Amino acid sequence: MSKAKILVCLDTDPQPSVFDGVVAVDAGVDQLFRHGGVTPEVVRNLVYGAIFTRGIEDLQSTAVFVGGSNVTAGEAVMAEVQDAFFGPMRTSVMLDSNGANTTAAATVLAARRHVSLRGLQATVLAATGSVGKRVVRLLAEEGASVRVCSRKLEAAEQTCKEVKAVVADAHLQPLETSNPQAMPAALEGTQVLVASGPPAVELASAELRAECSSLEVALDLNAVPPLGLGGVEVQDHAVQRDGHLCYGALGVGGTKMKIHKAAVARLFDGNDQVLDALEIYALGKELEG
Amino acid sequence: MSKAKILVCLDTDPQPSVFDGVVAVDAGVDQLFRHGGVTPEVVRNLVYGAIFTRGIEDLQSTAVFVGGSNVTAGEAVMAEVQDAFFGPMRTSVMLDSNGANTTAAATVLAARRHVSLRGLQATVLAATGSVGKRVVRLLAEEGASVRVCSRKLEAAEQTCKEVKAVVADAHLQPLETSNPQAMPAALEGTQVLVASGPPAVELASAELRAECSSLEVALDLNAVPPLGLGGVEVQDHAVQRDGHLCYGALGVGGTKMKIHKAAVARLFDGNDQVLDALEIYALGKELEG
Amino acid sequence: MSKAKILVCLDTDPQPSVFDGVVAVDAGVDQLFRHGGVTPEVVRNLVYGAIFTRGIEDLQSTAVFVGGSNVTAGEAVMAEVQDAFFGPMRTSVMLDSNGANTTAAATVLAARRHVSLRGLQATVLAATGSVGKRVVRLLAEEGASVRVCSRKLEAAEQTCKEVKAVVADAHLQPLETSNPQAMPAALEGTQVLVASGPPAVELASAELRAECSSLEVALDLNAVPPLGLGGVEVQDHAVQRDGHLCYGALGVGGTKMKIHKAAVARLFDGNDQVLDALEIYALGKELEG
Repeated sequence: MSKAKILVCLDTDPQPSVFDGVVAVDAGVDQLFRHGGVTPEVVRNLVYGAIFTRGIEDLQSTAVFVGGSNVTAGEAVMAEVQDAFFGPMRTSVMLDSNGANTTAAATVLAARRHVSLRGLQATVLAATGSVGKRVVRLLAEEGASVRVCSRKLEAAEQTCKEVKAVVADAHLQPLETSNPQAMPAALEGTQVLVASGPPAVELASAELRAECSSLEVALDLNAVPPLGLGGVEVQDHAVQRDGHLCYGALGVGGTKMKIHKAAVARLFDGNDQVLDALEIYALGKELEG
Repeated sequence: MSKAKILVCLDTDPQPSVFDGVVAVDAGVDQLFRHGGVTPEVVRNLVYGAIFTRGIEDLQSTAVFVGGSNVTAGEAVMAEVQDAFFGPMRTSVMLDSNGANTTAAATVLAARRHVSLRGLQATVLAATGSVGKRVVRLLAEEGASVRVCSRKLEAAEQTCKEVKAVVADAHLQPLETSNPQAMPAALEGTQVLVASGPPAVELASAELRAECSSLEVALDLNAVPPLGLGGVEVQDHAVQRDGHLCYGALGVGGTKMKIHKAAVARLFDGNDQVLDALEIYALGKELEG
Repeated sequence: MSKAKILVCLDTDPQPSVFDGVVAVDAGVDQLFRHGGVTPEVVRNLVYGAIFTRGIEDLQSTAVFVGGSNVTAGEAVMAEVQDAFFGPMRTSVMLDSNGANTTAAATVLAARRHVSLRGLQATVLAATGSVGKRVVRLLAEEGASVRVCSRKLEAAEQTCKEVKAVVADAHLQPLETSNPQAMPAALEGTQVLVASGPPAVELASAELRAECSSLEVALDLNAVPPLGLGGVEVQDHAVQRDGHLCYGALGVGGTKMKIHKAAVARLFDGNDQVLDALEIYALGKELEG
């Protein structure tokens, strides 16, 4: 008989995420070990508890999930988790701090339903946040040319550098878009536009978006009005507006949830899964069929 | 297939209540998300995790329970929980900090088994605490006239004011009972006497109680000797003493537990239950048949 | 129908042990209430939650486990847990902070498979730690003469005093073994050698061990190289080396895990089990058949 599925949730926020917990339960996890306020220092001992308690053949029934609102903190915890593994003494592990990996995957997958990403021109606004960086990376992996936009050129350049470090042949262009005058150049000829900005900040007006005749898909990940792309509605799911298809945050969210749930379930298929940006995107592709 | 029942326990104490946890398990909850040290500031994000993870048709399988030893702190958390809901995006929620709602309900229901509360004279000693206030309110809702007793007249007056704000036609009389000389007036002609004082403090002597010829039911909610009402035993359950029926804290406790368990179960009958003082009392009435 | 098995885990570390949690799940516990940062002050209220929620006939389905890396802190919590019980209002409880009780039991049981402990000469290196003390105690209970070795004579004497307080007829000899010159006397004529030192500290060289012709079983509880006994391998399980049988930390660990799991399961056989050093050792003996 197979062992109960245990998910060790290492959350960097003081209160562990209810969101991640509910998704885990709905993904079939039997027992959640929810830890809040996790720092890299405490990780090793917790991971040892996960890998030294069951026989190697049963380690696939234990897994680790790294979450919390701070993606950088999550990445540090994720690194420690993997560092504690050795040889076959390991469990599967997934990182989805701030929902960044599942959201980025759902965003790029939504675009991919309508256009071929290879060689296409994409623009990512507010591209230097945790979700934006991952969207840039996944678009680059798919062969798109990406304009990496930020209020600060240095931040945009830094994101380009980070993505090129992992996607050698990425076609990236850093752009400062701190004032509206810069927007036409950012949007000119672009086919996919992603706004991954903070809540309640409009990054591109409805007029700018409507005037961009090359645009085929516009995706906005901000769920709190005013939204990031003027004229897009939060629940838009491939809604035709001004000659292109629009997605709002909730429109992308359904796919995100499916990917999140499938990724947690996938953890228990073996004890060697490492689900980070690329793996979660790949899994999302499988789900799209 | 229905989803696993998840109860998100928001406890204002540093260590979440084991008591509330065991009752929830025995009420049929599948997964407990137990949070300690909860303050109003962290509530919104936790509630969003509860309402944004399952489809609306499945939201009745997620619920929120607010607990902890400090009722005022619990009320602040409860207010934040409800403020985070919007439209159909909500779950059922129950407040039972310090067991105040279930204890008050069980107390008034015990009295109600033996006397008709409408028009009756009741006296609540130590009426200004979290349980006492609720007992006063429930008695007032049932149409009893209530003497609201406290060591401090201002506190008694404040409680009367609070209860009148929610029970417009309440018949309440604030009384200072800081010294034994004040007790005869507090007890004169009363039919139901409730002592909801702190542990190990006698509020009325056995003599005073015995001499109150009008008394029909005496209920004491203090389980730590000396009890609040002299001569009453902690396990008394409708025990005849001095011409009236007596209930001790454990005698009321059995009903309290049944109400608590039934209330948690009720949370999962829909996603719109708000179980606070009145609703929990109404549920207790149903259980009495 | 029997109630869900609830284990209240009181852990003195800030993050509750994943190790203890996984073992509990595999021992058949249905619901884990995992508490971190537990101090004696908060214990009573948590224990009251465990004993006041279910009828006496159902109290065997609730149990308490005390864990954490600090055994002294765990013992203080264990004492508070037992102090909160009264009469039949109690649950079963187990102490295994730092795995000390289960590790000590597994160690002595491993030796006992090969030699008769009564009257035998044993040597425990680093005997003054939480595991070492318990190994000394169990060996003394079985009638072995034990050399209690430490870098500091005072610490060794203190351990002897503590063990004699609970095993009146114990044959113990405190020894300072802070330099290699002291080792031959510590090992002379010994039949069972236990090294319960800290990670990555060699306590006896391979030469010393090999030259000890009286030795029948050598057990090393340090899993991090360099191991405590030179030439012993961490996974050794009754491996013949230099004329005696060797056990490494992982070789002892399998038995430890079995004892730990069986002890947690045993908690639910009644509501009156108190599983500390001796009881856990006795349970280990049962498992050996």
